Amino acid sequence: MNVTVWNENRHEQKNPEVRSIYPDGIHGTIAGFLEEMGHRVQTATLDEPEHGLTDDVLRSTEVLIWWGHLAHEEVDSVIVEKVKNRVLDGMGLIVLHSGHFSKIFKSLMGTGCDLKWREADEKERLWVVEPSHPIVDGIGEYIELEKEEMYGEHFDIPAPDELVFMSWFEGGEVFRSGCTYKRGSGKVFYFRPGHETYPTYHNKDIQKVIGNAVRWAAPADREKPVYGNAQPLEKITVK
Amino acid sequence: MNVTVWNENRHEQKNPEVRSIYPDGIHGTIAGFLEEMGHRVQTATLDEPEHGLTDDVLRSTEVLIWWGHLAHEEVDSVIVEKVKNRVLDGMGLIVLHSGHFSKIFKSLMGTGCDLKWREADEKERLWVVEPSHPIVDGIGEYIELEKEEMYGEHFDIPAPDELVFMSWFEGGEVFRSGCTYKRGSGKVFYFRPGHETYPTYHNKDIQKVIGNAVRWAAPADREKPVYGNAQPLEKITVK
Amino acid sequence: MNVTVWNENRHEQKNPEVRSIYPDGIHGTIAGFLEEMGHRVQTATLDEPEHGLTDDVLRSTEVLIWWGHLAHEEVDSVIVEKVKNRVLDGMGLIVLHSGHFSKIFKSLMGTGCDLKWREADEKERLWVVEPSHPIVDGIGEYIELEKEEMYGEHFDIPAPDELVFMSWFEGGEVFRSGCTYKRGSGKVFYFRPGHETYPTYHNKDIQKVIGNAVRWAAPADREKPVYGNAQPLEKITVK
Amino acid sequence: MNVTVWNENRHEQKNPEVRSIYPDGIHGTIAGFLEEMGHRVQTATLDEPEHGLTDDVLRSTEVLIWWGHLAHEEVDSVIVEKVKNRVLDGMGLIVLHSGHFSKIFKSLMGTGCDLKWREADEKERLWVVEPSHPIVDGIGEYIELEKEEMYGEHFDIPAPDELVFMSWFEGGEVFRSGCTYKRGSGKVFYFRPGHETYPTYHNKDIQKVIGNAVRWAAPADREKPVYGNAQPLEKITVK
Repeated sequence: MNVTVWNENRHEQKNPEVRSIYPDGIHGTIAGFLEEMGHRVQTATLDEPEHGLTDDVLRSTEVLIWWGHLAHEEVDSVIVEKVKNRVLDGMGLIVLHSGHFSKIFKSLMGTGCDLKWREADEKERLWVVEPSHPIVDGIGEYIELEKEEMYGEHFDIPAPDELVFMSWFEGGEVFRSGCTYKRGSGKVFYFRPGHETYPTYHNKDIQKVIGNAVRWAAPADREKPVYGNAQPLEKITVK
Repeated sequence: MNVTVWNENRHEQKNPEVRSIYPDGIHGTIAGFLEEMGHRVQTATLDEPEHGLTDDVLRSTEVLIWWGHLAHEEVDSVIVEKVKNRVLDGMGLIVLHSGHFSKIFKSLMGTGCDLKWREADEKERLWVVEPSHPIVDGIGEYIELEKEEMYGEHFDIPAPDELVFMSWFEGGEVFRSGCTYKRGSGKVFYFRPGHETYPTYHNKDIQKVIGNAVRWAAPADREKPVYGNAQPLEKITVK
Repeated sequence: MNVTVWNENRHEQKNPEVRSIYPDGIHGTIAGFLEEMGHRVQTATLDEPEHGLTDDVLRSTEVLIWWGHLAHEEVDSVIVEKVKNRVLDGMGLIVLHSGHFSKIFKSLMGTGCDLKWREADEKERLWVVEPSHPIVDGIGEYIELEKEEMYGEHFDIPAPDELVFMSWFEGGEVFRSGCTYKRGSGKVFYFRPGHETYPTYHNKDIQKVIGNAVRWAAPADREKPVYGNAQPLEKITVK
Repeated sequence: MNVTVWNENRHEQKNPEVRSIYPDGIHGTIAGFLEEMGHRVQTATLDEPEHGLTDDVLRSTEVLIWWGHLAHEEVDSVIVEKVKNRVLDGMGLIVLHSGHFSKIFKSLMGTGCDLKWREADEKERLWVVEPSHPIVDGIGEYIELEKEEMYGEHFDIPAPDELVFMSWFEGGEVFRSGCTYKRGSGKVFYFRPGHETYPTYHNKDIQKVIGNAVRWAAPADREKPVYGNAQPLEKITVK
């Protein structure tokens, strides 16, 4: 699979704590484990020309991974529109953590995508609620992260096509933390964990889920539907 | 219920055939039967200031009905954004027929909302597939319309939360013609029939469905969720 | 609405603690608050002839509420089949707490309906995840119960049509605690809380949810679908 | 994949017309094309001991295909229970055509599974409504079958998790003809076409869909969830 990992890559520049956890950037870490799983991976970041998402890159990308937080507003709406069209045409999209507030995710969901949050080093347990789903292949009953940022309901999203994970947080909240959607000819997976100050993307289970999601989100092998004025059966006469 | 019927109201101005079917406009006909059902109804049209959708009108509207076709692009995006925010805050929205391509519907769906179509005076049968749904109260196994415009799959929408009607067309197509969605605190119903050159909104069953949908789409009686930084249980310490 | 509250009514006979919380039985408490809401309510219990669910009672019941725990196997399968047929014909069904393992619920779900559980006086928070749903009218962001039995995922049910509540438990688990289903012409709501040793059904929010669910589960006002050999359009000739 | 094709195999014995279309039985034809796709396939039929579904066969089957019509009542409920348990444990199940009325399908659905039908040599078009689904890989906008038995709505099933195909029939009906469900750890696909007097399972597109469905229905690669009394986090004390 041809995967592109997009990362805002700002926290890594500003915050030595983040840089020490992700010396190659969050994108570098994710690209690394996906390559080990056998995928062809490239990365792209906000500050590259066209945010690294040129027409060539998008055309050749089968699954795009998205991490952003501080600078959603700096992402050019023209690029967002191109990404959206590629998703509707079949490219898979995996939106991570604070990407819930990205232009691309909000545009594909049609809702505000807001939520509750808290930074308090809380334990998170991601419980599997859809045990037959390929995204949870090889995963136990839950994934436990010792410390993460809390995200809590209400999460202002459309009801997911499939609810794969539900998170429990120490401080009293729950969250729909693994959600699949189909949009046009494309598949979308939202996966909650991954606050920049925790080593979440080094966790083997989290890596496994992202790897599974890449395979699940692969483009369908068929022509896009044809829209517009349609031919009838021979017995119907068009005015 | 406080209902506002919004209509583009352009076909009625240009086309004597449409005017003869809907002398008071499509909005006038819909407002008429909803009033007879006991609702408080106002109308609004494209060419009024702010398209008739002032802040006052929107604030007092519990369910908004939307019919548009020729002039989706002329609807001011600022007004669309206000309507969307009202839906997410709880106002019901019923989108009719060619409104599938309106800015408000596309924005709430997150997809292209395209479809197949044909004008060939075809018979349409809207089959009930969700027999327990309040939107089909009083409706038989199907609604038959002698002549309608054909809309065919693939309809580029998210899978509906509930699929209430599926249409059959003489020329060989099917269509998901009654679809419910929840978005934020609001409910959305898309209902397919109603091409301007047919007397569809004079059909008693069609009127019954729209009346049922108004009741179904009523705003919930509760506070909007609170988003943002959240208080934990006492045992958790925020950093 | 004509409501019948069915209760196994065994804990109340054996356990003074339960009897002190529910002197009139769990069924008596539930019937009491539903009557105050204006419903016509009757009760039925396991040890009555036909478990109190005679053909007359079932025929006149619009919404049936079900609480059982110790004696699921003692419920006569013939009665269960009658209840199921009434649900498929349109009667609403609200299954409470340990009713997840009742014959009627398992038969309507088609799955094992198993779950994790623990009795440890844990705090439960039921978070609203579907803010526009009529079942949560008048309910805040969550319902908090100081002490309840824990039920945890994986809950072996089909993905609900609508997930209304998700529970958080002190000990680290989450649970899909308010789930709607449509089955045939009937509506089903599963609502988790209500262990017999806690005063849960005296909680005003819990009462409000059950009252809302009764209204939501009302039978549709239409004929049952017709099945079997069907007449075609005139142009098709049957062999 | 280890696939078992189960067929009632009664029409083939009684009806020379059916035998001429399926000289090796419907099961033989389906097994044939699945083997060509690279699967390991065995067959089983009603009149074999234990209907050919011994514990060994079931244990080694990853995906089971089911065709039955005349003799649903002759299928031993003990065997049905074993099949159901295997599905809930992860075995994929593909139910074809008149299998909608089989004990195994009705038991997994929880509803009556009834429908309308007509034998009138009608054209059927199966329209793809979920273009990104792996089950429609390699399939065009629709599959057209010149002559088939009609099945029409209302189809008394739970709303499918995913609606993949919707059928159009010449005589005026529509039908949800490709439906996915998750049940326990297993995946279920119902696929409508395949009346015994038509050469439907020789159609290349129909074969492709069944082949795709076999891959989609593959068991998940993980442990079954653990149910029952659960351990808490260390800070919770069990009574």
